Amino acid sequence: MNEFEIIKHYFTADSGRKDVLMGPGDDCALLQVPPQTWLAVSTDTLVAGVHFFPDMDPVALGHKALAVNLSDLAAMGADPRWVSLALTLPSADEGWIKGFCAGFFELAEYYNVALVGGDMTKGPLSITVTVHGTLPEGKGLRRSGARAGDGIYVTGTLGDAALGLQQRLGQVAVPDEYLDFVRTKFEHPHPRILAGQALRDIASSALDLSDGLLGDLGHIMRASGVRAQLELEQLPLSEAMQAAVPAESGWELALTGGDDYELCFTVPETHRGLLDTALAHCGVKFTRVGRILAGDPGVELLAEGKPYRLQAQSWDHFRSA
Amino acid sequence: MNEFEIIKHYFTADSGRKDVLMGPGDDCALLQVPPQTWLAVSTDTLVAGVHFFPDMDPVALGHKALAVNLSDLAAMGADPRWVSLALTLPSADEGWIKGFCAGFFELAEYYNVALVGGDMTKGPLSITVTVHGTLPEGKGLRRSGARAGDGIYVTGTLGDAALGLQQRLGQVAVPDEYLDFVRTKFEHPHPRILAGQALRDIASSALDLSDGLLGDLGHIMRASGVRAQLELEQLPLSEAMQAAVPAESGWELALTGGDDYELCFTVPETHRGLLDTALAHCGVKFTRVGRILAGDPGVELLAEGKPYRLQAQSWDHFRSA
Repeated sequence: MNEFEIIKHYFTADSGRKDVLMGPGDDCALLQVPPQTWLAVSTDTLVAGVHFFPDMDPVALGHKALAVNLSDLAAMGADPRWVSLALTLPSADEGWIKGFCAGFFELAEYYNVALVGGDMTKGPLSITVTVHGTLPEGKGLRRSGARAGDGIYVTGTLGDAALGLQQRLGQVAVPDEYLDFVRTKFEHPHPRILAGQALRDIASSALDLSDGLLGDLGHIMRASGVRAQLELEQLPLSEAMQAAVPAESGWELALTGGDDYELCFTVPETHRGLLDTALAHCGVKFTRVGRILAGDPGVELLAEGKPYRLQAQSWDHFRSA
Repeated sequence: MNEFEIIKHYFTADSGRKDVLMGPGDDCALLQVPPQTWLAVSTDTLVAGVHFFPDMDPVALGHKALAVNLSDLAAMGADPRWVSLALTLPSADEGWIKGFCAGFFELAEYYNVALVGGDMTKGPLSITVTVHGTLPEGKGLRRSGARAGDGIYVTGTLGDAALGLQQRLGQVAVPDEYLDFVRTKFEHPHPRILAGQALRDIASSALDLSDGLLGDLGHIMRASGVRAQLELEQLPLSEAMQAAVPAESGWELALTGGDDYELCFTVPETHRGLLDTALAHCGVKFTRVGRILAGDPGVELLAEGKPYRLQAQSWDHFRSA
């Protein structure tokens, strides 16, 4: 098959969404944004050898490429609608494309997201996804709303994806019974769409954890002009993490590991009851890990009530090797 | 500077657009789509060594990366509004980024397009741009509207970018006085935004010429279920083209050369007067190059009224070497 045949065969399935007036195959997609809503847009690129192993299972990669983008919509509290996919491939390997599409479309269908366009080009393996969602006018979980006195929360458990990576690299031994769990956390992140929507009227700020809690929380602090105090004993560590490494290593992975795609958010004390109810309704586990203080933007770490110093830094693609 | 500092310094200029409620720097951009409009979205990737020479002037590359995407909005007749930029770079070379931004933002400001988000990652040089525009509800120049009896038109002159490429590769000699012209056509394509908007109520179908008239017109034929007849003597060839190569080579470059980013469109005979007025108003030269016939989708070439056969094929990234 040539480029056009591959696109036609694999990338033009009808999503059935009524708000897609023109899907893939013309110069532009044409989309209908409902009245009284705002459009939320986010773009993320995954590059082979940087964000994933070049031999990664294409099914998992298709899932992950969409998942990390949907995670940005989740962090804003938006309703996912449409996605564009720009795929750069060394060759038109149909088996690979078929696998990638299986992973991508399974997740797209789960959240009723329509693929509305994109591009397929020849070159070093890389994937850029642009997701579109909507929010009721005036809503949106920004990074700038955290205030002194708010609690700091995270969904799920932290550091498992980084543990999965370390296991894959042979840097740490994970007991056999947890191997599937950490590999799934590493390759199959699940975007917290429902939690994000549930937090729309409850959280004062939010983002998704892609680079590690320490660095990501720092973005909220700078945007909000406040200070965070984290209690390390409160960090939610999985059974797998507790079985595989000492507590301090677990904290380090949770703080700097990245690739978790859990939500981190702040909630005013007056909304604590609402929070319990809202996240219980969507079945999402969450944990209070600290609080917001007045002061210069920064993140303080406490262990047993005392300041704690950490060596590692948050991930920066251009600073790291 | 690290990734975040570079993004902050170079990619967060305030566009002043009132419909951007949240620009770069949060998990998503938040955008306001006016009532009674449709959203038009398109994505294109440019890969170093495939779509451009790796040593291409970054200013020209910044311009071209946005221009080829705006060209898709032009082909739909849309009003440009917002753009996302995913930039993959081997290293954070500030001089290069500064140049790229100069070219990118000059064009963005010209069309009042706001950069609303994106991603910057480390990897082999590649650029994916997603543009967003709007159309009055129910409008849009699709590929599927061509009908037997319509005329086939193109804007500008064709083949000059391909001539510029061949000159650069040393395959053809271009007289000195035309060197700037062909290089500009090759590196600085100008999206036909105003022409596209003017054609909204006049053309029955349209697309932009990225792969060469022959292949691109084939898309309209298949989408519309009709046949095209092109008169090769009518193809608009520039003075540079006429000075550099024989007429038949000029036709070949116009038909298969690609990278022109002119519009190709069809117009019912009853709209010919409207067409003359509309494109004269926006100062865009255009030429009638053939007509639509009933019959199986395909493109017939006529020279001196007789069928003409061509060797070369339209560009396909996965079929060509």
